[in-house]
Amino acid sequence: MSEPITGIVGYPVTPFVPDDPSTVNVEVLHQLIDRMIDAGVDAIAPLGSTGESAYLDHDEWVMVATESIRNVAARVPTVVGVSDVTTAGAVERARVAESLGATALMATPVSYWPLTEEEVRVHFTAIAAAVTVPLMAYNNPATTGIDMSPEFLVRLVAAVPNITMVKESSGDIGRMRRLRELSEGSLPYFNGRNPLALQAFDAGAAGWCTAAACLVPHRVVAFHRAVVAGDAACATECFAQMEPLLELIVSRGLPTTVKSGLRSIGIDAGDPRRPLLPLGAAEAARLAGLIAACER
Amino acid sequence: MSEPITGIVGYPVTPFVPDDPSTVNVEVLHQLIDRMIDAGVDAIAPLGSTGESAYLDHDEWVMVATESIRNVAARVPTVVGVSDVTTAGAVERARVAESLGATALMATPVSYWPLTEEEVRVHFTAIAAAVTVPLMAYNNPATTGIDMSPEFLVRLVAAVPNITMVKESSGDIGRMRRLRELSEGSLPYFNGRNPLALQAFDAGAAGWCTAAACLVPHRVVAFHRAVVAGDAACATECFAQMEPLLELIVSRGLPTTVKSGLRSIGIDAGDPRRPLLPLGAAEAARLAGLIAACER
Amino acid sequence: MSEPITGIVGYPVTPFVPDDPSTVNVEVLHQLIDRMIDAGVDAIAPLGSTGESAYLDHDEWVMVATESIRNVAARVPTVVGVSDVTTAGAVERARVAESLGATALMATPVSYWPLTEEEVRVHFTAIAAAVTVPLMAYNNPATTGIDMSPEFLVRLVAAVPNITMVKESSGDIGRMRRLRELSEGSLPYFNGRNPLALQAFDAGAAGWCTAAACLVPHRVVAFHRAVVAGDAACATECFAQMEPLLELIVSRGLPTTVKSGLRSIGIDAGDPRRPLLPLGAAEAARLAGLIAACER
Amino acid sequence: MSEPITGIVGYPVTPFVPDDPSTVNVEVLHQLIDRMIDAGVDAIAPLGSTGESAYLDHDEWVMVATESIRNVAARVPTVVGVSDVTTAGAVERARVAESLGATALMATPVSYWPLTEEEVRVHFTAIAAAVTVPLMAYNNPATTGIDMSPEFLVRLVAAVPNITMVKESSGDIGRMRRLRELSEGSLPYFNGRNPLALQAFDAGAAGWCTAAACLVPHRVVAFHRAVVAGDAACATECFAQMEPLLELIVSRGLPTTVKSGLRSIGIDAGDPRRPLLPLGAAEAARLAGLIAACER
Repeated sequence: MSEPITGIVGYPVTPFVPDDPSTVNVEVLHQLIDRMIDAGVDAIAPLGSTGESAYLDHDEWVMVATESIRNVAARVPTVVGVSDVTTAGAVERARVAESLGATALMATPVSYWPLTEEEVRVHFTAIAAAVTVPLMAYNNPATTGIDMSPEFLVRLVAAVPNITMVKESSGDIGRMRRLRELSEGSLPYFNGRNPLALQAFDAGAAGWCTAAACLVPHRVVAFHRAVVAGDAACATECFAQMEPLLELIVSRGLPTTVKSGLRSIGIDAGDPRRPLLPLGAAEAARLAGLIAACER
Repeated sequence: MSEPITGIVGYPVTPFVPDDPSTVNVEVLHQLIDRMIDAGVDAIAPLGSTGESAYLDHDEWVMVATESIRNVAARVPTVVGVSDVTTAGAVERARVAESLGATALMATPVSYWPLTEEEVRVHFTAIAAAVTVPLMAYNNPATTGIDMSPEFLVRLVAAVPNITMVKESSGDIGRMRRLRELSEGSLPYFNGRNPLALQAFDAGAAGWCTAAACLVPHRVVAFHRAVVAGDAACATECFAQMEPLLELIVSRGLPTTVKSGLRSIGIDAGDPRRPLLPLGAAEAARLAGLIAACER
Repeated sequence: MSEPITGIVGYPVTPFVPDDPSTVNVEVLHQLIDRMIDAGVDAIAPLGSTGESAYLDHDEWVMVATESIRNVAARVPTVVGVSDVTTAGAVERARVAESLGATALMATPVSYWPLTEEEVRVHFTAIAAAVTVPLMAYNNPATTGIDMSPEFLVRLVAAVPNITMVKESSGDIGRMRRLRELSEGSLPYFNGRNPLALQAFDAGAAGWCTAAACLVPHRVVAFHRAVVAGDAACATECFAQMEPLLELIVSRGLPTTVKSGLRSIGIDAGDPRRPLLPLGAAEAARLAGLIAACER
Repeated sequence: MSEPITGIVGYPVTPFVPDDPSTVNVEVLHQLIDRMIDAGVDAIAPLGSTGESAYLDHDEWVMVATESIRNVAARVPTVVGVSDVTTAGAVERARVAESLGATALMATPVSYWPLTEEEVRVHFTAIAAAVTVPLMAYNNPATTGIDMSPEFLVRLVAAVPNITMVKESSGDIGRMRRLRELSEGSLPYFNGRNPLALQAFDAGAAGWCTAAACLVPHRVVAFHRAVVAGDAACATECFAQMEPLLELIVSRGLPTTVKSGLRSIGIDAGDPRRPLLPLGAAEAARLAGLIAACER
C-alpha cells in the first residue's frame, strides 16, 4: 500500500503545437511537469479538466497518459484522469492508466444526457472494479451538469473498496464539512475550486487540486507549506497574494486562462482546442500582470 | 433551392445489437426509419440527441450517417446531427453529411467547459462555412449546459447565410414568441420539447422535432395534420391522448425511454450505451401502457 | 446505367502539409484534381496506391474521399479506392464511398498473411455485395503479395454482377490478352503498369490508370487521344517522349516519385508518410528534368 | 540490465468472441497466456504476426497490449510486437508498450509500397530511438514482402544500441550461420520458421519464436529442454513428433491454423478476422489429429 496522496496536486494543461491545436506538444508537456515537480508539488494529475481530456481522442489520450507517466517517472504520484462519455471508454482508460503505472485515477461523470444517481453509481463502480489502484471521485457540476451530494459520495466510497478519495469543485465549502461528518473524518477530500483553497484546508481538505501550479508553482507550494506548518498568518498572506489570480483563472475555462498565462511567462503551450478560444488581449494582459505580481 | 422543411421531424434512436451496445444494429435502424416515413413524417433526423450521437465514435457516426441517408433515399428530407465536442470534429461531420446527401444539418454546442457567446458564435460560423446546405441551430440547455437566447440566435441567423432554422428545447414557450418578434416572422423555429408541441404550434413553430415518432408515428402525424388543417378541437384531443406519453419519455433521457418503448412494441433496438441504463421494469410497464393507449 | 469508364484515369497523390505528413492538405488535393480534369483526363481515382491509402487512418480516408468527390463534382467519373486490410473495413469504405457519390470503386486485396483464392473471392464478393456501383478488381502483386490470375479474375467477374472491370499491374502484357480471350472481349481491363501503357492499348486495354497524370496531364491526355484516333505514329512518338519519365516514377513507390516531381513544378504536396522517404536530390533532379522535357 | 531472453517465446493468437470477430476476447487471451507460462515457456510475445496485429485498430492494439502485459505480470519477459504500417504508428506503439512494462519489443517492416534499405533503416532507427528497452528486428519476407539480409541486419544492430536481437523467418537456415559469422557470435538470433526449429538451434539460435506453444506447449518446452541439456537424441525424437504439426500450421496463416487447433482442444479463440477464413473441415480434422498425437 502506497502513501496516501496529500497536498498540492498539480494539473498540467495538454500543450498543443503553436498554431496547430490538432497536435499535442510532448516536449512542452514534459517541461510543465518538470517545472511543477521541481517547485515541490506533491502529485501530478494529467488529463483532468484542465488537460482538455474531453477534447482529445482516444489515441491522443493514450499518448498523453503514456508521456506524462514516463516523464513523472515516479518522482511524485501520478493521478490520471480517466473520465469518458461512455462507461466502456472510462473503464478502458482506467485499465490502460493503471498498466502504464498511474498511482491513482480520477473520474468525473460526463454524459450528454443527465444521469440518475443509479447511473452514476454503476458508472463509478464499473471503473473501480476494472483496476486495483485508488480512484478519486470528482464532483464538478459546473462542467458536467451532474451534482453528486456528499451523502451520495460517502455511500459510494463505502460501497466500493478502491474509491478512496473525493475531489469537490462545487464551490460550496459546506460540502467538505459534510463529507467529514458523514465519513467521520475517514474520507480524504480535495478541493478543486481554486479561490476556496484556504477555506478548504481550514475545512480539513487533504489537498488542493490546482492548475495554478502551472503558472505559479513556487507560490502554490509555499502556501501549502505554510498551511502544513500551521502558520496561519503566512498562509493567509500567501493566499491573499494569489487570490486575484485564482479568481481570474476560473472566470473562464482553465485551459484558456492557463495557456494564456503560460505564454506570458515564456512557455508556449499553444491555444486551447476549439470551440474554446484563446483569452482576449485585455484579459491576457491582466493575467500576465497578476502572475508577475505573484512571483515578486 | 429545395422546399423548406416543416412539420414532423422524426428522430430515430441509434439501435444497438441486443446485449451488445458496442455494435450498431443497421437493420433495425432501417426498420425505424421506414416505419416513420411510412406513417407520414415530414423529415428524418438521425444522429441527434436521441440518436446517442454524443456516445458514438467517429467511425460509428460515419456509418450511421451513411446508412440513414441511404435508407431514407430522398423519400423525405434528412436532417443530420453533426454536433461534436470539438469544432474541427463538427466541421468534418458537416462536410461528410453534406457529401453523403443530407438535406440539412443540425448542431448544438456541446463542450465540457462552458462557452462564451463568442465561442458559440465562432463554432457555429465555422460549421456553416464548411457547407452549403442549411444548418439548424439547436438550443438545449438541459443537456448541453449552454443556453442560447433568442436574441443571440436571431443575430446568428442574420450573420450566417446558411443558418436558416432554429430548434428550441429550453422548455420556455416565450422563447418562440420572442424568436418570431425579433425575426419579424422570417425565421422558422422548431419545437424540441415534446410536451410543449401543441403550444409551440400555437406560437408559430414550423415543426416538431420528436423522438415520439419512433413510438407512435401515426398518432404524431395525425396530430400534425389536424394542426395544419386548422382543426383545433381535433389537434387538442389528439395531443391530449399523447400527452402522458410525452411527459414520461422526457422524464429520463430519450434514448433510455424510447428504446424501452420500442421493445414493448416488438422492435429490439437494444439498450442505450452506458452510463445510460435501461428503464426500470415499473416505468417500462407504464410506458408500454401509454404507447398501447395511444395506438387505440 | 452510366457510361462505361474508359481512357485516362488520373490518380492523385494524397497531399500532406509541408513538414507535417500527419495532416492532409485539402487545398492541394483540390488543385491536383482540378489540374487533371482541366487537362482532359477521363476519370479521377482518389485513394489508390498512389494516394497512400494504405497509410491513412479511417478518419483520414473518409475525409479524402469526401473532399475528392466534392471537388470532382461529377465533371468526370470518380473511382474511389476502398482497399482495407480487413474485409469489414473495405465493406465500410465501399458503402461510404457509394453514399458520397462515387461513380465506381476499386479494390485490391491487401493482407499481412497471404490469402488463398477462396479468401480473395470471399473478400471481393463481400465488398461488391455491399454496394450497387461497379467495382474494379485490381491486381498488383508487387505491392500486395497476392497475384490474381486472369482465370481467377474472369471467374470472379462472371460470378459477381457488379465486379465489372479489372486493373492489371502485374507487368505481364500477356495477362491482358488472356483476359480478352477468356472473357471473349466482354471484360474491360485497365493497365496500371505505367511503362506498358502503349502495349496495353495495343492489347485492348479500356484505359490507363496512372499517377503520371499528376505530373504531365496534357501529355498523358494527348497520348491517349492519339491512341483513340488510331494515329499510331503520333501515339508512339508521344509515348516515347514520356517513357523515361514513366520508367523513373515506377523505380520507387509512386507517392515518393510523384510528390518529388510535383515539387519540381511548383506544387507542394508534401512528403510521403514514413516509412516512405522523399526522393534523393540526384533522382529528384533527374525526375524534374524528365518532366520539363515532356512539357516542351 | 535484465537477463537476456532465450528459449521458447510463445506467441498467443488474439482471440475474438465466438461469431463476432470484431470483439477481442480478453478472457481467452488470459487463458492462452497462462497456459503457456504454466507449461514453462520462457517469454510471451503478444501482438505478433500470429496475434493478427496487422488486422487490429490502434484502440484494440492498446487494449491487447495492456491486457497481455497485465496478465503475464512479469512471470516471464513480455516481447510486444509494435509493427505498424507507418513509422509514426510504430513509434507510438513502442512508447506505449514500454510504458506498459514490456520487457522488449519486436518489429517487422510492413509497408504497402516496397521499401529501400535506407527506408527500413530509418524506420527501425526511429522506433528504437523512442524507447530504452531492447528491440528485436524481425525478418519475414513471406508476409512483409521485404527481405532484410544478414549483412543489413548486422549493420543495423551495430548502429543502433537497443536493437539487440534478430528474428529470422526467411526459411533459409544459412542466414543464421551468416548472422553468427558477421556478428562474431555476439548477436542473439531467434528462429521464427517453425519447421526449422531443430536446425536453428543447431545453427546457434538463441530461441524459437513460436505459435505452436499455443497448441502443444508442454511438447515445445520439453523439446527445448532437451536441446539445452544437450540431449540430441531426445531433442530429435521430440521434434520429429511435432514436425508434421509444425508443417501443417505454416501451410496457412498461423492465426487460421492455430485458432482451428485451439478449438480442437476446447479453447474457443474465435475465427481469424476476414479476409482470413477459418480452416476447412478436412484440414481442421487433420490438425486436431496431429495435436492429439503430440500430446500422447
